[in-house]
Amino acid sequence: MSNQAATWKERNRPARLERRIVFEDYEQTRDFLEALADISEAANRYPDISFGRTSVSLTIQTDEDSGAILPEHRAFARQIDALITAVPAAS
Amino acid sequence: MSNQAATWKERNRPARLERRIVFEDYEQTRDFLEALADISEAANRYPDISFGRTSVSLTIQTDEDSGAILPEHRAFARQIDALITAVPAAS
Repeated sequence: MSNQAATWKERNRPARLERRIVFEDYEQTRDFLEALADISEAANRYPDISFGRTSVSLTIQTDEDSGAILPEHRAFARQIDALITAVPAAS
Repeated sequence: MSNQAATWKERNRPARLERRIVFEDYEQTRDFLEALADISEAANRYPDISFGRTSVSLTIQTDEDSGAILPEHRAFARQIDALITAVPAAS
């Protein structure tokens, strides 16, 4: 498994990728969510997002027909990871 | 009850205000969330927010010590309502 598994959890019924991130402050949370909105629009892929002041939970759902985690879902997860690593103290 | 009750649901254990909004498209969702981020920072009040492409669920938590819905929570809910009514087709 790529180190992606270390950051994203794979769930079943339905198959999905989940990740939780904690930022240092709301400004980082907000910057991250705005960058994520940009890549969501570009990829036309809209994860389920729950957030408060500093914590963000993400779920990348699989498409109903395939019902499986596909390379395109993993690629989108990696795009999101790249946004997170750009934020110094995110964990 | 003000018509606020028609838009926000009051829950118990713990006391909180909840509302779900559906927008017409992601652009409206995004505009709303950015406006909400501005008033959150101004009020230093950060609701729990869950969203996807067009639906947004909001929870205004009460402060642990009081554990009750106070006028300040209702005032913040009304501020959010004002953002929603600014969006033509939100329901």
